[in-house]
Amino acid sequence: MKNRRVKQAVVLLSGGLDSATVLYLAKAKGYLCRCLIFDYGQIHKKEIRQAKRIAKAAGCAYKILKIKFPWKGSALLDRKIKIPEKINRGIPATYVPSRNIIFLSFAASFAETVGAESIFMGAHAQDYSGYPDCRREFFSAFSKMVKAGTYGGFSIRVPLLYKNKSQIILMGKRLGVPFELTWSCYRGGKAPCTRCDSCYYRAKGFKEARLVDALIK
Amino acid sequence: MKNRRVKQAVVLLSGGLDSATVLYLAKAKGYLCRCLIFDYGQIHKKEIRQAKRIAKAAGCAYKILKIKFPWKGSALLDRKIKIPEKINRGIPATYVPSRNIIFLSFAASFAETVGAESIFMGAHAQDYSGYPDCRREFFSAFSKMVKAGTYGGFSIRVPLLYKNKSQIILMGKRLGVPFELTWSCYRGGKAPCTRCDSCYYRAKGFKEARLVDALIK
Repeated sequence: MKNRRVKQAVVLLSGGLDSATVLYLAKAKGYLCRCLIFDYGQIHKKEIRQAKRIAKAAGCAYKILKIKFPWKGSALLDRKIKIPEKINRGIPATYVPSRNIIFLSFAASFAETVGAESIFMGAHAQDYSGYPDCRREFFSAFSKMVKAGTYGGFSIRVPLLYKNKSQIILMGKRLGVPFELTWSCYRGGKAPCTRCDSCYYRAKGFKEARLVDALIK
Repeated sequence: MKNRRVKQAVVLLSGGLDSATVLYLAKAKGYLCRCLIFDYGQIHKKEIRQAKRIAKAAGCAYKILKIKFPWKGSALLDRKIKIPEKINRGIPATYVPSRNIIFLSFAASFAETVGAESIFMGAHAQDYSGYPDCRREFFSAFSKMVKAGTYGGFSIRVPLLYKNKSQIILMGKRLGVPFELTWSCYRGGKAPCTRCDSCYYRAKGFKEARLVDALIK
């Protein structure tokens, strides 16, 4: 028997279908995955509960990291700011300044602590509502930065970067992602609102993939 | 009268003498400073109290950001790990993986939210116990990363990077830094332990600057 070292990965899990797909992809690639879930004061708390359920369904360990931002300014953190409907121009109200930078920084700390060789994240450049921290240039610059600033030799992997929503859904379907456990809506309701950016892209994705979203009754 | 826009800065304040000096330097350069203090589970809690006192002495607003790391592995976070005495080789036990990456990421979020143009940090490359996130290459890579990943046009400033402790102490002296409010010791005692890395460098710095450290009785 060959003595193979187990490949370890830290997977950022949001509860949405993108990160769930990435988790199942990392598992399929043979990684021992540790999920990192953020409780950052998002109004859509349901995301966190669903993220835990997805991690359990995948048979993976998870850590929840609580962050209390002492400043507001995003519709995802502040009930007073309206969640925009469909696509808007300019800086989206749902933009949380430097959110992915912060999330990846904690993932880097976790990866360095446990000796993981990869960090997986479900970001993608196309349907991303215009966030600058979802662009290829950003992930490439982040990888260089952690190389310079840590003892760890890990890399940042964003396998969905050039995929659109329907491609992600088809990939997730092949990998056996439990889509019924995923949550995309920016609003904190019991059922998806079907009107925010995130619901819009999810519905479009399922339609283009010619699949039925089990979440929508 | 000229209509001058007020320059704003976010200053990372630890309670130590380096970051206090940087705060006073930024003030002297005409910045309206907002301090960011981290409560990250450090055993030397006194640091936080002193950081607040320094911010107040400088007449600057501050925010405290609480982070609960769900993983341990550093002597600064875990009482079970021994704080090393004097200089050691290899990865220091006081190293908190990706700490500066995380701190700067939050500073980036804060700077972006308030529209600050600069982030000041008191890191320096010489007496840094060997942390990789205190090197010039790291700060340069971090600056490029935030440029790619945010809407903000701010820059990361590390004015002490090439200074040694005695130069910093002399600079602080000129700027009127209340050194008696600063705290450097890694241990959580009432008085500095005088034996950890941080105490060692502080004592060496004051000696070389031919000044008396008011903190040492």
